[in-house]
Amino acid sequence: MTAHMLTANYLGNREIGISETDVQPPAPGQVQIEVAYTGICGTDLHILHGSMDTRVSMPAILGHEMSGIIAAVGEGVEGWQTGDHVTVMPLEWDGTCAACRAGHQHICQNLNFIGIDSPGALQRLWNVAAAHVVALPKELRLDHAALVEPVAVAVHDVRRAELAPGDSAVVIGGGPIGALIATVARNEGARVVVAEIDPSRRQAIADLGFEVLDPGTQDQTAWVNEWTGGAGADVVFEVSGAAAAILGATGLAKVRGTIVVVAIHPQPRPVNLQQVFWRELRILGARVYQRIDFERAVELLSTGVIPADQLVTGIEPITETAQAFATLESGQAMKVLIDVGSGATS
Amino acid sequence: MTAHMLTANYLGNREIGISETDVQPPAPGQVQIEVAYTGICGTDLHILHGSMDTRVSMPAILGHEMSGIIAAVGEGVEGWQTGDHVTVMPLEWDGTCAACRAGHQHICQNLNFIGIDSPGALQRLWNVAAAHVVALPKELRLDHAALVEPVAVAVHDVRRAELAPGDSAVVIGGGPIGALIATVARNEGARVVVAEIDPSRRQAIADLGFEVLDPGTQDQTAWVNEWTGGAGADVVFEVSGAAAAILGATGLAKVRGTIVVVAIHPQPRPVNLQQVFWRELRILGARVYQRIDFERAVELLSTGVIPADQLVTGIEPITETAQAFATLESGQAMKVLIDVGSGATS
Repeated sequence: MTAHMLTANYLGNREIGISETDVQPPAPGQVQIEVAYTGICGTDLHILHGSMDTRVSMPAILGHEMSGIIAAVGEGVEGWQTGDHVTVMPLEWDGTCAACRAGHQHICQNLNFIGIDSPGALQRLWNVAAAHVVALPKELRLDHAALVEPVAVAVHDVRRAELAPGDSAVVIGGGPIGALIATVARNEGARVVVAEIDPSRRQAIADLGFEVLDPGTQDQTAWVNEWTGGAGADVVFEVSGAAAAILGATGLAKVRGTIVVVAIHPQPRPVNLQQVFWRELRILGARVYQRIDFERAVELLSTGVIPADQLVTGIEPITETAQAFATLESGQAMKVLIDVGSGATS
Repeated sequence: MTAHMLTANYLGNREIGISETDVQPPAPGQVQIEVAYTGICGTDLHILHGSMDTRVSMPAILGHEMSGIIAAVGEGVEGWQTGDHVTVMPLEWDGTCAACRAGHQHICQNLNFIGIDSPGALQRLWNVAAAHVVALPKELRLDHAALVEPVAVAVHDVRRAELAPGDSAVVIGGGPIGALIATVARNEGARVVVAEIDPSRRQAIADLGFEVLDPGTQDQTAWVNEWTGGAGADVVFEVSGAAAAILGATGLAKVRGTIVVVAIHPQPRPVNLQQVFWRELRILGARVYQRIDFERAVELLSTGVIPADQLVTGIEPITETAQAFATLESGQAMKVLIDVGSGATS
């Protein structure tokens, strides 16, 4: 008798469907992971909205933020056992392009982003090449562990900024990634303020103990100037994706300060290059993560640095995946997880 | 009897006037330099066009690229003698602002740029604080030495880019600074191509032995891609100030490549932040120079690395300063010098 499982699929046309699928055994070099929780994020929403239809093959099993337990180990796989708690770093690089050869595999010119370019974790029994698996300590709750991937994004962004203890950091955008960057930056010893227009998100950030700014009503340049004794901020993280945010960001940074572009800006944005020149600013793109970021994220979740309980604002069964996307779309949720264990059939 | 000299002055309203002025002795801490040659540049043109009228006090003695010989030494000055060949690094910082305290004096938040914010070198006997004086070897011709300042800009830009031997560099804009950046980059071991729309400037750059591109008729992205084996350029220098140039620059850089913003962009420009994010690019502002850049520039001129004879396309007497500005404005000249020695009276 063939075993079956539920999967959640993006069907195109803003639709999510649930199907019952045959379970396949892991191929040589793969492990089979019994997925516990899968987070959904802004990128998944972009996919739902059709903005990435050229990249995804429909029906597409989404999901690139997850936790689970190894259920089976394929031929030739060493170092992993049934029962191991794990997550997946969802990047598959070609190893041969110019970026890979220069050590930037994480942004390989032909990157396969697992869960976008190939099937992801919204399936109960997921076969993944062992090379992508990252160990989790058993003490780390599996719902919390579903945050490893977004925490790794934040760790990467902060590391890319070369943030030092005592630095001042402005985070523009108080969504889940903004909240995580603020948390990681604070943990590195930075003074942090988060600029967020939406009152409920601003409140959520304030509840995490951060200073907040409302760029809709406050003069953020004057505020940051005052906050930094006239110097400007050491680092500005642009996490909002808003045109006004990147236009204003150059005015918040100190001489030789850094602006990290974390958000996706789908079209070219006006940037004040006169300020970039005048202050010798540095604008850095930061995308995904490297393995050390993933491992550091596991550590930050295991040691309780990340307020996972406050950040996870909802957990839905896999059959309610469409509803979970709707909740996320409303902008009122921080992080929504899918309980993929609820998708076990027989 | 009081000695007199000629000075060239910006009078406002696009006018340059020549006046006869009393010579003042150097104050304590100053040296008096008998100015030999003063170069005029794009910034001086901006002043002539009125764009910097809030910064300059009219009548303004312009000139911040110069060479000369010490004619007198003020009280308390040590280390300088009458007869020394010198140039001036025209930056006066306050030493107390946040930028200065962090070691970025050259872009002090309250910088006095000598020759813009205070009187410059278009005067025969110029009194300057000894702190700003830089020694020239006597073997270096004084007309060539008037290029030290713009060469220092190029040295600073290349150093800021962290260009390494073997790197590929695209210089967008083939004016004097573009030509100097290309020369300095090539001397550091980089492969260089210069993109320039104007045919006569493009020819002048080709005559210096550089590969050239015409972004008006060639697909520069495809060209650079082919030139770099599909990787993209290590460094792109944006020296043109054109909106199209900065919009295209992100498409020329490799993964983790660098774009240096050298040109002045008077208004915010659309930048492809999606490429900045996707390739984890780095955009760096680069402004003026530090003392080591000035010293390196003297060395590069003294050793003949800089093709000074080809770059200096005209030398005019101080009485023809207005004509020299008109030549520069036509866009057909590379570097025009004023022979300030011609302004000696009695």
